Amino acid sequence: MKIVILAVGKLKDRRIASLAQEYLTRIRPTGIVGVDRVPDVAAVRPEEAIEREGLELLRRIRPRDRAVLLREDGTERTSTELASFLAREMERTAGRVLLIVGGPWGTSCDVAARADESLSLSRMTFPHEMCFLFLAEQLYRAFSILGGAGYHH
Amino acid sequence: MKIVILAVGKLKDRRIASLAQEYLTRIRPTGIVGVDRVPDVAAVRPEEAIEREGLELLRRIRPRDRAVLLREDGTERTSTELASFLAREMERTAGRVLLIVGGPWGTSCDVAARADESLSLSRMTFPHEMCFLFLAEQLYRAFSILGGAGYHH
Repeated sequence: MKIVILAVGKLKDRRIASLAQEYLTRIRPTGIVGVDRVPDVAAVRPEEAIEREGLELLRRIRPRDRAVLLREDGTERTSTELASFLAREMERTAGRVLLIVGGPWGTSCDVAARADESLSLSRMTFPHEMCFLFLAEQLYRAFSILGGAGYHH
Repeated sequence: MKIVILAVGKLKDRRIASLAQEYLTRIRPTGIVGVDRVPDVAAVRPEEAIEREGLELLRRIRPRDRAVLLREDGTERTSTELASFLAREMERTAGRVLLIVGGPWGTSCDVAARADESLSLSRMTFPHEMCFLFLAEQLYRAFSILGGAGYHH
């Protein structure tokens, strides 16, 4: 898998999980996109959860991977720009392109420091699970744009 | 209702409709937010659909209403800025604050010309139905911010 969504926690809402799965299933034939999940930490203090989830995320990132961290204040891209960006990142790396979706409390500074790029889906704060859904839809859209299919308009 | 989501078409996906309804139900006790729907036009040409949906939207906008058009290239706001914006718009108008979600093909120039403000949920293109869901969640979040509840962090 060349592009991997590296996410903290499972999708607990069935409706969101089902919608996200639908988009991921549509791009499965490309053989390019995979999902890897790190367990979310039910810590008493958010800081502790962020810290421990961060360590686990860092363990999954290989040296040659390009790490793209999703964050509200990250780089904004239109859907077309995201498609070109992903194509470029895939060319650029000898490893994988990781799209990192942090936990509900955010991501540790160490993960941010390891990230090569950032990506903002919106300036607005959305629920953690919805970010995953938005990203799945945008990946489907990106492949549609790159493949010239008629989904994006 | 002081704030009305004025949307083209119904939510056809049950999962999205159920998620959106959940957020709208949570803010129903405020008595502030309502939803008004204009039928989507199944026209052969997108231009024709946009035109006819636009006329219907314009018929629903009253002279004293503040019209906020959702569009990709509209004004971006963080969730906190959206909350203040809505509070300000509600104070400002003797009518209602309309949040206009166009159809899958977009909105006519006449609707854009009537709009007093624009709002962008994301620079990315999302499916029409998901926009409605994002907006419902952001409205719930905005009321939580304005009311000081603990939802937003």
